[in-house]
Amino acid sequence: MKASGILTLLTDFGWQDAYVAAMKGVIFSRFPQARLVDITHEIAPQNILQAGFVLAEAVRWYPAGTVHVVVVDPGVGTQRRALVAEVDDQIIVAPDNGVLSFLLGKSQQARCFELTDPSLGLKERSATFHGRDLFAPAAAMIASGAVTPRECGPAIDPIVRMLRKPKLSRHGAQGEVLYVDRFGNLVTNVPGAALPAVRHSVVLKIGSQTIANFVQTYGRAEKGELVGLIGSHGQLEIARVEGDAAQVLACKAGASVQASWTVPA
Amino acid sequence: MKASGILTLLTDFGWQDAYVAAMKGVIFSRFPQARLVDITHEIAPQNILQAGFVLAEAVRWYPAGTVHVVVVDPGVGTQRRALVAEVDDQIIVAPDNGVLSFLLGKSQQARCFELTDPSLGLKERSATFHGRDLFAPAAAMIASGAVTPRECGPAIDPIVRMLRKPKLSRHGAQGEVLYVDRFGNLVTNVPGAALPAVRHSVVLKIGSQTIANFVQTYGRAEKGELVGLIGSHGQLEIARVEGDAAQVLACKAGASVQASWTVPA
Amino acid sequence: MKASGILTLLTDFGWQDAYVAAMKGVIFSRFPQARLVDITHEIAPQNILQAGFVLAEAVRWYPAGTVHVVVVDPGVGTQRRALVAEVDDQIIVAPDNGVLSFLLGKSQQARCFELTDPSLGLKERSATFHGRDLFAPAAAMIASGAVTPRECGPAIDPIVRMLRKPKLSRHGAQGEVLYVDRFGNLVTNVPGAALPAVRHSVVLKIGSQTIANFVQTYGRAEKGELVGLIGSHGQLEIARVEGDAAQVLACKAGASVQASWTVPA
Repeated sequence: MKASGILTLLTDFGWQDAYVAAMKGVIFSRFPQARLVDITHEIAPQNILQAGFVLAEAVRWYPAGTVHVVVVDPGVGTQRRALVAEVDDQIIVAPDNGVLSFLLGKSQQARCFELTDPSLGLKERSATFHGRDLFAPAAAMIASGAVTPRECGPAIDPIVRMLRKPKLSRHGAQGEVLYVDRFGNLVTNVPGAALPAVRHSVVLKIGSQTIANFVQTYGRAEKGELVGLIGSHGQLEIARVEGDAAQVLACKAGASVQASWTVPA
Repeated sequence: MKASGILTLLTDFGWQDAYVAAMKGVIFSRFPQARLVDITHEIAPQNILQAGFVLAEAVRWYPAGTVHVVVVDPGVGTQRRALVAEVDDQIIVAPDNGVLSFLLGKSQQARCFELTDPSLGLKERSATFHGRDLFAPAAAMIASGAVTPRECGPAIDPIVRMLRKPKLSRHGAQGEVLYVDRFGNLVTNVPGAALPAVRHSVVLKIGSQTIANFVQTYGRAEKGELVGLIGSHGQLEIARVEGDAAQVLACKAGASVQASWTVPA
Repeated sequence: MKASGILTLLTDFGWQDAYVAAMKGVIFSRFPQARLVDITHEIAPQNILQAGFVLAEAVRWYPAGTVHVVVVDPGVGTQRRALVAEVDDQIIVAPDNGVLSFLLGKSQQARCFELTDPSLGLKERSATFHGRDLFAPAAAMIASGAVTPRECGPAIDPIVRMLRKPKLSRHGAQGEVLYVDRFGNLVTNVPGAALPAVRHSVVLKIGSQTIANFVQTYGRAEKGELVGLIGSHGQLEIARVEGDAAQVLACKAGASVQASWTVPA
């Protein structure tokens, strides 16, 4: 796979410290022509599954050969392995802690390698910041075309966290909230394709709330209403029009969601 | 107008989700050499006027032919139109919801087109995320020079929200706070040019507070003092030296401001 | 020194306003091929020392000839001078207010010039936003290679704030917290090199808390434990594993820290 020269970063570092900037300096030092993109740095500290969800939703839009560096790394400096993964036509450099779980669940093909070649990291390596000292310089080498994923180390099976799957039937689905976005929209693990083509009979239950208003888009209901819809992730989503459903429903990731509908006889 | 290759993004998506990153991936997929700039993603959700103010203040500094994608889009998926606008030497791609009001109010010339050509969007278009599925890919095509604004669709008149104008007289001005910035500075709709050249007699009233200290810059008064000045937007501004005027005055956008001064006989 | 074409920005402007975007527009107008990096815009308003710490930690990772624009500028529009500094192989453009103190303390060599050449700023200069009207355009000229630091104005001695040094002895160190990062890690002014090579006897005192757990990296202790370690800045650091030490200890920059250890006979 030919590198696109584009390199993204996804971390839980926030923007206020020098950590992200240090990683970018290291990348430019090895690959001055890198085109850098910040996916996000606002993953909640050490929240591997949140990072994994955002990663899976972001990378599928990038040109083939884009390199994505993921640093949400509570095990830094311990025995946890470092990974380079080719997932479909994208390349991921990340700690081996399950952060690829969502992405691998959606991919057609994947090959993973342990990042063991010591020449890919900085000469002096701290015990606490492999984002700067290992992942960034290795990713720069890959993005520049100087090294391929398979040259980084031996093939391995990455850690994958088993994600709970929704229970689907002809008349309904039982799932959970996977992710709460900035607007307070609740993205569930129920795929849109599980719902019937005609959706006006869909009724959702979440907590003590029943939502009988299934719409095609936010603007099709009145301000403040709770609605169900198939969101831009392709999943069942619960939203409040021009408002924050998570706040109103006091819900977060993990909350149970039930959908039911009538099937024409 | 020749495209500069620079493409900016201005949204209410925040940084924590995959939405901005997905838009950038789509842009790079169509225009790998794009030079991307984030104007801001921290517009309050669905706040069209805040987005419009920031847009107008940002775009005037960019090279001719820069393309600005604006996605603050409560009407996504409804009948609201999509716009491509040439405003002076800048190009804006945005939903037609009034977000251009400030910019058009300051421009010398503008031409607007409805973005109707279906080949400019992605083949599969969600009902809730036209930023990714329509605005980003169309903007990438324009920024790359593959298509011009007028080729995107028919000429139209965009929606413009009437902005309240300040009342100006020889001895004073009656206006309102347009925008509160990160520092708590209150930017008003009173143009600096409306004030007399010699400003030491200017007295401001906002809420129950009277401010008789008109300065040239923040550092010309003591820490903690409330002052009036002509800010970097060229408008009358109320600030608290090394402090937060909005917090101390408990003010936000829309608050009334009165200025008065004496005129030499 | 040859310019790398990379230009970074470090401000207290936050992301929500048009200020950062205006600076970038000005930079692109003078140097369309600039490769821009945001170090951070989340310095607390007017906090010069916080900006200086982040600057020193970030710039050392960048390719030689990178230009860093720093705008934390409470004295804007007053008599405070504007600086262009060559510090080791990096170039800094900043107000002369002490923001270089940390960086100069770590550098091998430095030369500073006052930015006086009026042609380097915009023709119309506001009294309150030299980031846009002076620092950004001058930095763009330097980063593009059109002008060298020494051509910007006369050599000067910059303002340097005296930083408190830790008291070091054979058996211990008395220092203070310099910086609190996003994770709540407390970075102190005690250099890692001051501690003994074998560190299991190191005991830290901060506030009323005693911390006897000195580790090599976060993952070497249980979740929730307070630990001491040498962090990625190379300094003594106090952390809470997968938690927030600053919050638990109710500490911020300036808090006293005492370290003691036994020395083999």
